[in-house]
Amino acid sequence: MSNQTGQDSGRWCCSPVTGEPLSGEQAGQLATMFKALGDPVRLRLLSLIAAHAGGEACVCDLTGAFDLSGPTISHHLKVLREAGLIASERRATWVYYWVLPEALQQLSSVLGPAPAAATRG
Amino acid sequence: MSNQTGQDSGRWCCSPVTGEPLSGEQAGQLATMFKALGDPVRLRLLSLIAAHAGGEACVCDLTGAFDLSGPTISHHLKVLREAGLIASERRATWVYYWVLPEALQQLSSVLGPAPAAATRG
Repeated sequence: MSNQTGQDSGRWCCSPVTGEPLSGEQAGQLATMFKALGDPVRLRLLSLIAAHAGGEACVCDLTGAFDLSGPTISHHLKVLREAGLIASERRATWVYYWVLPEALQQLSSVLGPAPAAATRG
Repeated sequence: MSNQTGQDSGRWCCSPVTGEPLSGEQAGQLATMFKALGDPVRLRLLSLIAAHAGGEACVCDLTGAFDLSGPTISHHLKVLREAGLIASERRATWVYYWVLPEALQQLSSVLGPAPAAATRG
């Protein structure tokens, strides 16, 4: 089994960034994940994987949506995987990818509103 | 009044990235915002501003938390402002910054779970 989750997604969790100042360690871990999302190709890959039948896709399902080579797509998938946003598993010829919803939920929670932030017009 | 919001935060909104494939335009706009968050200093600035008394802060309130020069802090604030995540207003000597909660809410919604994404283990 080569199921690769990249990192432990439960290492800390979920106070809004607007609730209290982040520590340097928290900011570093979050920044890695946000940086992985800071590219249009990777964002589209993430949404294509999630929207694919069964919630998973191989590179062969994804290359048609981009004017990019297979190795370039694979590189972007690796960045997403190493950031802990997707996981992968090899089955025969192809590596299949799926989104890790708990990682997206973690980021979503971090961006969620806190009472102090919601009051400023 | 030099209130600078950076961009129109209502230009499109809020289906989860996992709900359906993003268009290239949507992915480009989102990636700019996520890329701005993809740096530990900028994430900490965002949380420090939001946590500051009154939900706003000037550079003079922020530099003490970092071993960085004022101009470097100002550069990071400019990136956050140009991405539409914070707004600013000059008052006498200082420029004051505050978080735009609707922008964070937009990103939070985009990362939120869709039924299809939540079913894959």
